[in-house]
Amino acid sequence: MRSVVYPGSFDPVTNGHTDLISRAARLFDRVVVAVAQDTGKVTTFSSEERVALVRASVEHIDNVEVVAFSGLLVEFARMLQVRVIMRGLRAVSDFEYEFQLAGMNRRMAPDIETLFLTPAETYSYISSSLVREIARLHGDVSAFVSPQVVAALKERFG
Amino acid sequence: MRSVVYPGSFDPVTNGHTDLISRAARLFDRVVVAVAQDTGKVTTFSSEERVALVRASVEHIDNVEVVAFSGLLVEFARMLQVRVIMRGLRAVSDFEYEFQLAGMNRRMAPDIETLFLTPAETYSYISSSLVREIARLHGDVSAFVSPQVVAALKERFG
Amino acid sequence: MRSVVYPGSFDPVTNGHTDLISRAARLFDRVVVAVAQDTGKVTTFSSEERVALVRASVEHIDNVEVVAFSGLLVEFARMLQVRVIMRGLRAVSDFEYEFQLAGMNRRMAPDIETLFLTPAETYSYISSSLVREIARLHGDVSAFVSPQVVAALKERFG
Amino acid sequence: MRSVVYPGSFDPVTNGHTDLISRAARLFDRVVVAVAQDTGKVTTFSSEERVALVRASVEHIDNVEVVAFSGLLVEFARMLQVRVIMRGLRAVSDFEYEFQLAGMNRRMAPDIETLFLTPAETYSYISSSLVREIARLHGDVSAFVSPQVVAALKERFG
Amino acid sequence: MRSVVYPGSFDPVTNGHTDLISRAARLFDRVVVAVAQDTGKVTTFSSEERVALVRASVEHIDNVEVVAFSGLLVEFARMLQVRVIMRGLRAVSDFEYEFQLAGMNRRMAPDIETLFLTPAETYSYISSSLVREIARLHGDVSAFVSPQVVAALKERFG
Amino acid sequence: MRSVVYPGSFDPVTNGHTDLISRAARLFDRVVVAVAQDTGKVTTFSSEERVALVRASVEHIDNVEVVAFSGLLVEFARMLQVRVIMRGLRAVSDFEYEFQLAGMNRRMAPDIETLFLTPAETYSYISSSLVREIARLHGDVSAFVSPQVVAALKERFG
Repeated sequence: MRSVVYPGSFDPVTNGHTDLISRAARLFDRVVVAVAQDTGKVTTFSSEERVALVRASVEHIDNVEVVAFSGLLVEFARMLQVRVIMRGLRAVSDFEYEFQLAGMNRRMAPDIETLFLTPAETYSYISSSLVREIARLHGDVSAFVSPQVVAALKERFG
Repeated sequence: MRSVVYPGSFDPVTNGHTDLISRAARLFDRVVVAVAQDTGKVTTFSSEERVALVRASVEHIDNVEVVAFSGLLVEFARMLQVRVIMRGLRAVSDFEYEFQLAGMNRRMAPDIETLFLTPAETYSYISSSLVREIARLHGDVSAFVSPQVVAALKERFG
Repeated sequence: MRSVVYPGSFDPVTNGHTDLISRAARLFDRVVVAVAQDTGKVTTFSSEERVALVRASVEHIDNVEVVAFSGLLVEFARMLQVRVIMRGLRAVSDFEYEFQLAGMNRRMAPDIETLFLTPAETYSYISSSLVREIARLHGDVSAFVSPQVVAALKERFG
Repeated sequence: MRSVVYPGSFDPVTNGHTDLISRAARLFDRVVVAVAQDTGKVTTFSSEERVALVRASVEHIDNVEVVAFSGLLVEFARMLQVRVIMRGLRAVSDFEYEFQLAGMNRRMAPDIETLFLTPAETYSYISSSLVREIARLHGDVSAFVSPQVVAALKERFG
Repeated sequence: MRSVVYPGSFDPVTNGHTDLISRAARLFDRVVVAVAQDTGKVTTFSSEERVALVRASVEHIDNVEVVAFSGLLVEFARMLQVRVIMRGLRAVSDFEYEFQLAGMNRRMAPDIETLFLTPAETYSYISSSLVREIARLHGDVSAFVSPQVVAALKERFG
Repeated sequence: MRSVVYPGSFDPVTNGHTDLISRAARLFDRVVVAVAQDTGKVTTFSSEERVALVRASVEHIDNVEVVAFSGLLVEFARMLQVRVIMRGLRAVSDFEYEFQLAGMNRRMAPDIETLFLTPAETYSYISSSLVREIARLHGDVSAFVSPQVVAALKERFG
């Protein structure tokens, strides 16, 4: 069985993430969405909330699991016996950071491969940080995230 | 009457910003410089100070107004009945962030267009954050900002 | 009356170009699409054909003129008494070339300003060269160009 | 059975290509290396030679086939009943072109997905065009390509 | 005697930094590694610790000195009577920030030149921030930093 | 004696090249400008003309020599007993190509180092290819190249 792990902070999950997950679900038998508990930053949502929002956004896709993880991604992937990490690429700045991350992960775990997918172009400009910024200013984010995330952002930013 | 809004945090306004404003003032009947009150970050200058420093730097240009705004930019533009947002592009990293921002603004307000100008190449390397950093270390920033901003930075960083 | 000139080789015009032209037509009183007769390269269509195809693609927009030009763009703009050049930005590589071009044009004609627009994200990946390549291999390009251009490409590549 | 097609001009195949093929061969049951017969450019090696050189470079990998193809890649992939295209990403300029190509392919064939892998960093600077350039100037390319390609380049450039 | 100053925060020094220092030591008679005391951010290691770790990593190279500095780099370089600043370039995002920095330094000190070196490709993906992140999550960083830095990170992150 | 070689096609030399040469001449005892005889492309000027135009542009700088070379740059550098190659960096696209080139040169000649300088920002947008393009269209290039090059371009393009 071919599995892939898709890690991220998902603070919150966007339609761009969901698009990538559904693409991965067609390519692999099993997609594990791995929500980082400890992102090294203050998050808008707790890891439990972030997991719950990803789950609500992908519940229509059969072969997807959503779990929280802590510690190093490559060790988590090994524990799951998954040899493939998936990352999304939207833009050049994504690419550079991802290249560094993939390079260091490859050195720590040469048996694990990182592959990249691009979202549909209609999602190419969506980022979690801009979604949070718009929600903080009480803008309408319903074109960028699922209804559950809209509700959660409204509750958070009043 | 053709109007344009030029938003930013202007913390502080630089000669690069002023160059862009004077270019816009030749292309449009009215330029509204919109200073974000709430930038989501700790700023070196208060929004009142930032507005005052922009005003001092552009007082020689007739068709420019400087105002503070809060909330979403596209809603502020609509309130002003302005259909055009101007942003400066200096570098590739500018471009990527601006592309995301323009994409999300376009989705929220399809009637509002974002256009981009580049500063004179002699200003292409100036950024507010590097100006603050140099001033913090007591360097001479008089080649990068107006005399009023030089004075304000000196007072701030002692 | 505010006018803008939008130069290019348009070999052939794509839906991305048409999107930019319609955006410009809302911002300016008059849009002059300037088709370069001499692009310095072998073109798939003659300049007459390229002009005709742009005209067919924008005939529904009132305030647009399509003309061929030869020689330097900034001199053509001056002859038209147009002070604004518009260029599209899709990607980082666009930006770099455009930055060079805008810089040299600004030095030759400081009175003429270059401004940039981005196409709708759904057109962000379309380029004339990829359209030609797909048509050369007898692929279906009807999602990327107007019906007239589809027909012209079919005739050209058999 | 999971299959992937890896298209390119391979003029000639480099150690960077071979590295990507061996990575793909671990992720997929079957890797089809698709050598473009008609690249739209003058090539140094004929398509038969390019196929033969790829074959010689990957003969130690079991689940790899090397074939020539003409026409549109997405149609070739469909004929093979392969739903996944693999492309290598070394640098930002790669990314931009690949993003355009993937966007246009996705529009023409929404059922086919493009995924990206990065070569080991030790191959990140190798390109077929620089290899050809060095060989043309009689430099030693044995660190960049297989012994068979070294021999073929020597014969070609004397 | 030709001297160069290599400034940075070195929080902590990586094998990529050490590679650049040893390259500089072959090009110049004297290399001054200048560790910024005040980086404007919270650092993982104090400036004394960062200086000590750089020293431990370069003790095998004769013509290298490691010193802490505060204030503006160009003034520090002048005080040392050094006219050349060296910076490393790994990636596009490095390049943009460095271009801004070099531009502003050149304006403040036209007599001082900034030159750039690239690390060996095997170090091109290493960054201090990713090293800190991996160490924080108790990953093995011994492939990226010297044994002394491994020990210091272990002590810091427990 | 510290020497550096600055290679290029210089078709034709621009004020940006001359700026870099004069910067190098202050950092090194001897600067060898190496004009590639065989650039792999059709050039506007012969290698003799290109050498003569570079010489005319740098005759006011004492420690500069201008020579034509053929074959591999690293072998030419070794023959000159020069261990340092200098290249200019204006933009991101420069950087990527230069990174590839430096990587391959380093593999072929680990004893030779490549270093990079940036031109003054006022020259950052000038490229030989745009200069040729403007001259071909009979535009005024006197702000971008030396008087000798202006004359040579006029003669060439009539």
